[in-house]
Amino acid sequence: MKDHLIKLLETCIENSSDEDLGALSFVLEGIQNKITEKNTTYIDGLLHMERKLDENSCEITVPNNPILYNNLNILHGGITATVLDTTMGTLANYHLPEGFGAVTNQLNIHYIAPGTGDKIRCRAEIVHKGSKTMVISGEAFRSDGKKIAYATGTFFTIQK
Amino acid sequence: MKDHLIKLLETCIENSSDEDLGALSFVLEGIQNKITEKNTTYIDGLLHMERKLDENSCEITVPNNPILYNNLNILHGGITATVLDTTMGTLANYHLPEGFGAVTNQLNIHYIAPGTGDKIRCRAEIVHKGSKTMVISGEAFRSDGKKIAYATGTFFTIQK
Amino acid sequence: MKDHLIKLLETCIENSSDEDLGALSFVLEGIQNKITEKNTTYIDGLLHMERKLDENSCEITVPNNPILYNNLNILHGGITATVLDTTMGTLANYHLPEGFGAVTNQLNIHYIAPGTGDKIRCRAEIVHKGSKTMVISGEAFRSDGKKIAYATGTFFTIQK
Amino acid sequence: MKDHLIKLLETCIENSSDEDLGALSFVLEGIQNKITEKNTTYIDGLLHMERKLDENSCEITVPNNPILYNNLNILHGGITATVLDTTMGTLANYHLPEGFGAVTNQLNIHYIAPGTGDKIRCRAEIVHKGSKTMVISGEAFRSDGKKIAYATGTFFTIQK
Repeated sequence: MKDHLIKLLETCIENSSDEDLGALSFVLEGIQNKITEKNTTYIDGLLHMERKLDENSCEITVPNNPILYNNLNILHGGITATVLDTTMGTLANYHLPEGFGAVTNQLNIHYIAPGTGDKIRCRAEIVHKGSKTMVISGEAFRSDGKKIAYATGTFFTIQK
Repeated sequence: MKDHLIKLLETCIENSSDEDLGALSFVLEGIQNKITEKNTTYIDGLLHMERKLDENSCEITVPNNPILYNNLNILHGGITATVLDTTMGTLANYHLPEGFGAVTNQLNIHYIAPGTGDKIRCRAEIVHKGSKTMVISGEAFRSDGKKIAYATGTFFTIQK
Repeated sequence: MKDHLIKLLETCIENSSDEDLGALSFVLEGIQNKITEKNTTYIDGLLHMERKLDENSCEITVPNNPILYNNLNILHGGITATVLDTTMGTLANYHLPEGFGAVTNQLNIHYIAPGTGDKIRCRAEIVHKGSKTMVISGEAFRSDGKKIAYATGTFFTIQK
Repeated sequence: MKDHLIKLLETCIENSSDEDLGALSFVLEGIQNKITEKNTTYIDGLLHMERKLDENSCEITVPNNPILYNNLNILHGGITATVLDTTMGTLANYHLPEGFGAVTNQLNIHYIAPGTGDKIRCRAEIVHKGSKTMVISGEAFRSDGKKIAYATGTFFTIQK
């Protein structure tokens, strides 16, 4: 397996443009984030997530990168959705007792502006905290402060 | 850069569990999909997307993989959102004249069941086709045929 | 009370335009629909709902009327929402055992075309039927067959 | 027509319960609100809307009434949707130059608690103000201050 991986990377490198080399670096560092336990999931690692969390809000910041672009060369709406959902779910989980987890039941996103610039910052707040469901809102901003998306979601409490 | 990448991969491998090695293989093959032009974007490549498209519907299938899991070890809702949005957007683009592209203005997703099993298959259909906006629906299924999500989205037509 | 009502109606009539007289007729017949048990709720009566229901779908038709217009003189989106929600909820309730009811937890509506013409027909179908939640879709059409709205909703099962 | 209306009301009254008489009073006063130009549309009149509006927010309060209940005897979700949509649309319109109007393109509502008590108060705020579209959020509260619903909507600017 290890030789196969080195061989695979060498083949990739041989045929790589500069952008491809940047992409390889971004994903390898991403997996490393998980291996070194800087992040707890591969997705969090791959997206290079940095998070801040307290009782009232959660913030996750990710660097923008060509690897996250759609075919129009702007941040893919699904990536914005992934970071928003993670930010909102992290806040929901923070409010649950041990042994319980929050799962997304419904997610609605308004896309407002193209996700360009260096970084995307998402911020979640609680709209409603019930015993079985929570409603959470989330906003995404780019480096110049412009809001690029607004989301709300319903989260269900489940026993892990 | 090339030596740096090989060194980075070696460091990753040294500290890798079997799951980590699988993750490294999955993302390197993913980037290779883009380099070899099997897929047109890094995201499509990383998710190993296979697509079928005709006038009436678009289908995209992706293999399930631990790299796509959330902290509850099930498919991350943001990944489901990414594949649904890509499937729906691909169908929207298919209906536009050259020089125009479709951007997601709003996306709503109902999550119905955990995304487990080997593969996730998404299927999009047109709800409304206007000159400036389209409404598209999308469904996601797992290998055993169970529906795991249902989405609708508004897509705007823009000049590229 | 009865004299007060007659007096109130007479005052209304005195200052009424033809449209106002039509509005008075529409709402009085609406309340009558409830009094005579043609409809089971005041809202259903006021909107003059006619419904068809079987296991797989529910259809509700309402006559269009100036009383249902917004300030742009087209059918108010909230009325479309009301008929869609009723159609979708009726179908959800049909699938529940006695003693249980369905409440709307979340409702998403795409407005597609102005609600003009004689009648509005809404049609609901089941997207997902779980033990605690259902996802239902609904479409609204005007008399000329044009789709004016597409909705999805999450319904929770509660004990009455 | 006028005799027909009086006759219709008398027939209604004859067979009315106390609740029915209250309903008749509520709708007749509602139509009167429109005739006397206290409200500008029949719906606003029928729902007895009182509104407060400034640059940053719009508030509409409506009295709760059995006429607005669903078959579970709580405020119909469609009525909450109607008041929210009106509040959000009023704020959108406030920000448009003369000759332009705002139409709802998409509306998403999270229902949080039953709409009981004397009054329902809705409050809208701007999430995003663009030249062609606005995103507006809306909250609904009952008299005891409890939040009963949270909504977001996309509004399109059209020439009247």
